[in-house]
Amino acid sequence: MRIAQLQLSVQEETEKNLDGLERMMEQAASEKPDLVTAGEMFTCPYVTEKFPAYAEPEGGRTWQRLSALAAAHHVYLAAGSVPERDEAGRIYNTAYVFDREGRQIAKHRKVHLFDIYLENGDGYRESATLTPGDYFTVFDTEFGRIGVLICFDIRFAEAARIEADCGAKAILVPGAFNMTTGPAHWELSFRMRAVDNQVFMIGTSDARNPDSGYTSWGHSILTDPWGRVVGQMEEQEGYMIHDIDLSMADQIRRQLPILSARRRDLYCIKTGEGVVE
Amino acid sequence: MRIAQLQLSVQEETEKNLDGLERMMEQAASEKPDLVTAGEMFTCPYVTEKFPAYAEPEGGRTWQRLSALAAAHHVYLAAGSVPERDEAGRIYNTAYVFDREGRQIAKHRKVHLFDIYLENGDGYRESATLTPGDYFTVFDTEFGRIGVLICFDIRFAEAARIEADCGAKAILVPGAFNMTTGPAHWELSFRMRAVDNQVFMIGTSDARNPDSGYTSWGHSILTDPWGRVVGQMEEQEGYMIHDIDLSMADQIRRQLPILSARRRDLYCIKTGEGVVE
Repeated sequence: MRIAQLQLSVQEETEKNLDGLERMMEQAASEKPDLVTAGEMFTCPYVTEKFPAYAEPEGGRTWQRLSALAAAHHVYLAAGSVPERDEAGRIYNTAYVFDREGRQIAKHRKVHLFDIYLENGDGYRESATLTPGDYFTVFDTEFGRIGVLICFDIRFAEAARIEADCGAKAILVPGAFNMTTGPAHWELSFRMRAVDNQVFMIGTSDARNPDSGYTSWGHSILTDPWGRVVGQMEEQEGYMIHDIDLSMADQIRRQLPILSARRRDLYCIKTGEGVVE
Repeated sequence: MRIAQLQLSVQEETEKNLDGLERMMEQAASEKPDLVTAGEMFTCPYVTEKFPAYAEPEGGRTWQRLSALAAAHHVYLAAGSVPERDEAGRIYNTAYVFDREGRQIAKHRKVHLFDIYLENGDGYRESATLTPGDYFTVFDTEFGRIGVLICFDIRFAEAARIEADCGAKAILVPGAFNMTTGPAHWELSFRMRAVDNQVFMIGTSDARNPDSGYTSWGHSILTDPWGRVVGQMEEQEGYMIHDIDLSMADQIRRQLPILSARRRDLYCIKTGEGVVE
């Protein structure tokens, strides 16, 4: 399974950002990726107050361009996340997933909103404008099952665990860590969720843009089920392509039986209606 | 709170290993540690088949020496783990914790036994001779609450989570990763459990002894609640001492509210009778 991770530089205008995605998909097309993915909120500046102005409904203009791009390139397109507005006017940080025919096969809404209060003064409160999702998301491909989390969701060990328990062998994470949390925890988090759940972790960030309201760490990353970094970018715009074999997850699970050796008599992660396939 | 981590070279004879502990505690005494800790199965070779011959009951000779050492030095002594035999003849990988008067205040029995089957031929099956524990363990000091896990227990995200939820601000982990899992996952695991649960992680290994049946990675480690490595040893015998302030856990939890931001409406870790304080 060939994965293309597109680390895009985000501009002010949605259309320009979609143009940027389209251009980079064309650049990568000759390598024939099976799945293309991008960063968090790659169609708009990562500024909480601006999300409402950029939000569109499912099926809207951005959605249509993404669907058309998936079909045109005959790829799975999990094009990062975008601001979504529902019928009631609530706004979500949403990752749509389209299949090779451009049909939507999954939609993840960020479950854990990024509300932090760093001592150095950095803070962020997504909950000021966003509503959190209320389910976890996996989808099926001919290669195997894949999960989706968005950025801060990776901070919660339970989230990746739940998706692995639903059969995910890889988890896509559009994200945009910042210049404090990025160097401290970005690579660490991807490596450890991979080791704990014996899955590939595919983290795709926006490129760093010092002029924007939010300075993204970049460093899109791919880790294998043994926790090795298969590839990691720097902060600039660009893309990387890797072939992964999802059966490696099974192989690692046989050698180091972490998932099956859990003491379910002593604990279990109890979920409600919270998983959608 | 001053922590002394003793990385001891394990010999064939229990008494010699206890002598080694005593000598190193004397060396460290001038620095007045509050808590002294050691590695996994530090009183006997780390060879599954040998555990039965070395096992002693709670209150036995090894237990008495440990209790006496805690009282003599007026320290909390969580002296790694030792093989314990219960009245029914079952054998456990057990970490006793003694207070400054030498009273036993906690006992953790390794909950997850180390049964692995690496492709390079390395394998290990603790369950051949050991019985797993059936509870998690925290204990109280004048500095705050501390949890205990043993080695492979750290592999299971739920275990540290449960102890943090019980109020642990630091978790002691006597361990002995090997030459495959050590370089791959030792530091990573301590850093990430620290970040996920916003606790100090205190991992103490046996020293490497190429002549023994099990070659330990060593690298005793201390990580803070932000996931920084405060100190890490090499593979040789020795000790390291650090001062930690458990209130740092609270400070980090305020800045980056991971524990409180969990979506308890979507998931929770359900435990049985499995926690003992």
